[in-house]
Amino acid sequence: MLVSPDLDHLGIAVRDLDAACQFYTALGFAVEGREEVAHEQVRVAMLPLGAGPARIELLQPTAAGSAVGRFLEKRGEGLHHVALRVPDLQAAMARLQAMGVRLVKDEIQIGAGGHRYVFVHPASAGGVLLELVEAKR
Amino acid sequence: MLVSPDLDHLGIAVRDLDAACQFYTALGFAVEGREEVAHEQVRVAMLPLGAGPARIELLQPTAAGSAVGRFLEKRGEGLHHVALRVPDLQAAMARLQAMGVRLVKDEIQIGAGGHRYVFVHPASAGGVLLELVEAKR
Repeated sequence: MLVSPDLDHLGIAVRDLDAACQFYTALGFAVEGREEVAHEQVRVAMLPLGAGPARIELLQPTAAGSAVGRFLEKRGEGLHHVALRVPDLQAAMARLQAMGVRLVKDEIQIGAGGHRYVFVHPASAGGVLLELVEAKR
Repeated sequence: MLVSPDLDHLGIAVRDLDAACQFYTALGFAVEGREEVAHEQVRVAMLPLGAGPARIELLQPTAAGSAVGRFLEKRGEGLHHVALRVPDLQAAMARLQAMGVRLVKDEIQIGAGGHRYVFVHPASAGGVLLELVEAKR
């Protein structure tokens, strides 16, 4: 049986991480973690949604030519990507590829903390940059 | 004490609601409800995230000149807005207005089912069209 994916995080591109944190703090959010992810050239602040583990990730690029830097230049600040937790990433990829859905890279990527993910290309996902993250088992 | 807002829904603008439902169904989502919201000129499909109540709302405009129709024309399909549940909408508005944050309308709106909401203008929310929905008490 398929399990409905849950939200892992919502990525929001910002120019000024401190200013964005101040805005979300006024809304009642706590800033639980800040880190720099060198290979993605971003500084990230993590703000749990409700009791978590889903969260908002505010993303400030550390280089203009990075993925988030190019997004800011082209579209300005705003919603950048949606990450969903799926129970079986390989199976989700197989279903999508059978439909002709284009992934940004065809292999599963390994991120910080060992989590496994792929990005679905926005051209195949109704304009949404969609990240699929495998739920920890 | 402030309570961290939870996600109420994520609004995604689509041109073809059936095609979008088919894509999200392949990812494991269930389409729980479909309705037409006449005063917002949209057809909506609701897809619970995980065990809910947070959900994805796929939005297809029923008129080109509607808010979602204009968004599609300007930016194409994609992430449209984020709705957060706050425990006390009046208090959240007061905090934001004290910071000089601009709302789309300065009065609380009443939506389907009697829920109370306001939209924060993207110009004041880092490019994000942010809906604040009062949590049912």
